[in-house]
Amino acid sequence: MRASQRIANITGGGDDGWGLFYKARAMIAAGAPVLELTIGEHDIRTDPRILDEMHRAAKAGHTGYASVPGMESLREAVAQRVSRQTGVATTKANVLITAGGQAGLFAAHHATCDEGARALFIDPYYATYPGVIRGVGALPVPVIARPEDGFQPKAAALEAVAPRASSLLINSPNNPTGAVYSQATLDMIADIATKQDLWVISDEVYDTQIWSGQPLSIRALPRMAERVLVVGSLSKSHAMTGSRIGWVVGPEEMIAHMTNLATHITYGVAGYIQEAGLYALSLGAEFEAEIAAPFRRRRDLALARLEGQSAIRATPPEGAMYLMLDIRATGLSGEAFGHALLEAEKIAVMPGESFGQAAAGHIRVALTLPDAPFEDAFGRLVDFAKALAK
Amino acid sequence: MRASQRIANITGGGDDGWGLFYKARAMIAAGAPVLELTIGEHDIRTDPRILDEMHRAAKAGHTGYASVPGMESLREAVAQRVSRQTGVATTKANVLITAGGQAGLFAAHHATCDEGARALFIDPYYATYPGVIRGVGALPVPVIARPEDGFQPKAAALEAVAPRASSLLINSPNNPTGAVYSQATLDMIADIATKQDLWVISDEVYDTQIWSGQPLSIRALPRMAERVLVVGSLSKSHAMTGSRIGWVVGPEEMIAHMTNLATHITYGVAGYIQEAGLYALSLGAEFEAEIAAPFRRRRDLALARLEGQSAIRATPPEGAMYLMLDIRATGLSGEAFGHALLEAEKIAVMPGESFGQAAAGHIRVALTLPDAPFEDAFGRLVDFAKALAK
Repeated sequence: MRASQRIANITGGGDDGWGLFYKARAMIAAGAPVLELTIGEHDIRTDPRILDEMHRAAKAGHTGYASVPGMESLREAVAQRVSRQTGVATTKANVLITAGGQAGLFAAHHATCDEGARALFIDPYYATYPGVIRGVGALPVPVIARPEDGFQPKAAALEAVAPRASSLLINSPNNPTGAVYSQATLDMIADIATKQDLWVISDEVYDTQIWSGQPLSIRALPRMAERVLVVGSLSKSHAMTGSRIGWVVGPEEMIAHMTNLATHITYGVAGYIQEAGLYALSLGAEFEAEIAAPFRRRRDLALARLEGQSAIRATPPEGAMYLMLDIRATGLSGEAFGHALLEAEKIAVMPGESFGQAAAGHIRVALTLPDAPFEDAFGRLVDFAKALAK
Repeated sequence: MRASQRIANITGGGDDGWGLFYKARAMIAAGAPVLELTIGEHDIRTDPRILDEMHRAAKAGHTGYASVPGMESLREAVAQRVSRQTGVATTKANVLITAGGQAGLFAAHHATCDEGARALFIDPYYATYPGVIRGVGALPVPVIARPEDGFQPKAAALEAVAPRASSLLINSPNNPTGAVYSQATLDMIADIATKQDLWVISDEVYDTQIWSGQPLSIRALPRMAERVLVVGSLSKSHAMTGSRIGWVVGPEEMIAHMTNLATHITYGVAGYIQEAGLYALSLGAEFEAEIAAPFRRRRDLALARLEGQSAIRATPPEGAMYLMLDIRATGLSGEAFGHALLEAEKIAVMPGESFGQAAAGHIRVALTLPDAPFEDAFGRLVDFAKALAK
C-alpha cells in the first residue's frame, strides 16, 4: 500500500533540519539541565483571565458546532484591529478565523496555488513554509535574502523567479532573522507582484513585536488589498500558542473560498476558544505591549553583551522574538556550532541551516528565557564563540 | 486575481443543497418558533466534568504548543479503546489526534489520493465528503446504495467503478441513512478493495450509536488493517462536537505521513482539549451509552408512531442519530416536502437530495430534540405526510 506522492513529499525528502532541537529535547527528557533558546514559545503561560473567559463560555453552553468562518463578533473584532493598525477599511467579510496561523498559511496557499504551481517564499524561512507549499501540491521556490542586506529581499532575486509564479509568501517581522521589511522593500515587492500578477501571502503573526521602525503591512500599499492575503494569529501577540487560533484577512471572495475549504478541513474552530480570543483582543494594545515587552528587554540585554567583540555579529534585530547571529568568525557552521554549544554549555539554539541556505553560518537565538537565565546563557554563548574565534 | 481551480471547485459548482437548512435558521433568527430536526448536534451540552478538566489543564499551564501527533497518553487511550472494540492490536504509533473527524477525513484523503485520483464514496453521503475529495484535488466518484437494499452498497455498483480508483470512503453506522453495514457488506467491500488495491477510509464516528446488530469495523477483517484508515471522533460519542477533537487510526507509516501533514495544516490540537478528551475517554463505555441512549429512545418513539400508516416508510434505523424516511408516497420530492413542512408546521428536516441522488424522495430526521417535543414534532410530521398521501 502506497501513500500519495503529495503527502510523501511534504518534507522534501531530507530530514527537517531540526535534529539539534530533538537532541536537546532528548537530553532534557533524560534529566540534563539544558537551557532552551530554540522555539518561539513564550516563557509565560496564557493569561488566566483569558482562560477563565474560555471556561465561562464553555460552561455557558458554547460547546456545540461554531459558525465555520468564525463568530461574527470575533471576525468583526479582527477587522477593526486590522483597520486600525493599517488604515485599510476591513470588514468581517474580509476575515476567516482559522485553527492558528498555520491553518491560515495552508488555506492561503490552497486558495492561490494549483497542482504544480510555483510558489515563492523568502529564504531564510520559518520551518513549515516549504512543506505547506508541497502540501497543496505546489513547487516551493526560494528567494534568497542575504545577510549582507540585513535579510531584506532584493529586486534582482525576486525578479529572477517571479515570472509564471502563482504566489509569494513574505513574513515581516521575520522569523528567523528578526528583520522588519522597510518601506522600500515592501514597495519593491508590491511592484513586482503587480507586474507579474502574483498573490502575496503576508505572514504578520509578529506584528506586535517591532523594536525599531514602523509597523507596515503590504496590504496597505496602493491597490494591494486585492492581491494580498494576510495571515494573523493570537499565538505570539497574546501568548496563546497552544490554543491554535488565528485568521486570514483578504478579498471577500477569497474568504468565501477559504471558508469552503475550512468546512472540509476542520469544520471551524471551538466556540469557547473563539470567545477567549475575543476577550483577549478586548484587552487592547496595552496588553499586547505587555506580552511583547520581555522580548524587547532581552534583545537589548543581548545587544549590550555583543559590544566590544567580533566573534558574533548580530543581524539588526528589528522585530520578532529571535536574534539571528552570524557565527562564521568561529570557523564553524551553524549546525556544528549548535552541537558544540549544546555539549559544552548545555545551551540549545537553532542552527541557521534549519531555516534555509541563506542562514548558513548563523544561529537563531529565541528570546524566550526569563531575563536572568537569558542573560547568563547568552553571556556564556558569546564567551564560547569568542574562545573559538581566537 | 483568480482563486486556484481546486479551491473554486470544492463545492462542485452547484449550491450545497442546504438551502432549506439556511431558510430554517433565517426563520429562527427572525423569531419564528421553528423545531429543528436537521443537524447532528446533541440537545445536551458537553458534560461539565469534561469542561472542568479542560479548565484545570489550561490553568495548570497546558497552554503552549502541544505535541503535533497528539499527547502520548491520549494516543495510547485511543489505541486501547480501538483494540478493545475491534480486537485489532493497536498502539499509539497507529494513532494521530486531529482537529475533529473532519480533519481526519481530509488527512486520510490527502494521504491516499494524488491530484486527479479517483476517490469513491457511498451515496447517500455526509455533506462534506465530495468536497473533501475535491479539496485534495481528486475526483469524487459516487457508489449508489439503494433504498430497496436498506442503503447497503452492493458489489455490482462498487465493481463498476473500483478499477483504477485510489480510495473508498465508507461510513457505518451511516449518516444520513441510519444503516449499519452487515458482515456480508463489509466482507464484500474488503474483497473488492483487496482485489483492486484500494485504500479504505472508514468513518466510524457513530460507533457508539448502534441500535441493532453488532459493532463491526472493517479494519478487523483479515489483512485489512494494512489498507484501512479509520476516522474517529469524540463529537458524537461524547457530545463534544464543538471541541473539534478526533483521530485517524491506521498503519504506522501512514500516521507518520499524516503527522507531517498535520504539522503544516494545524500544528496540532490544543493541549487542554486533548486533556479534556483523555478525561472523556476515561469515563468509559457507561458514559458513552448514556450519551447515546436518548437517540435510541427517540428512534423507538418514532418507529411506534410510524405503525399503521403508509405515507412514510422508514429505512430500518440500525444506528446513528438520524432516521431516513421515504416520503415518495406523498408525491413530493424530499426538497418540496421539506419546504412545505417548514412552512406549514415550522418543522425543519433535511431533504434527502442534500445527501445525494440515492436519497431523493426521502427526508432525514435528526433525533436531536428532547423526547416530548420530538414526539410532538414527529407526530405532526407524520400527519402532514398522511394528509398529502391521501
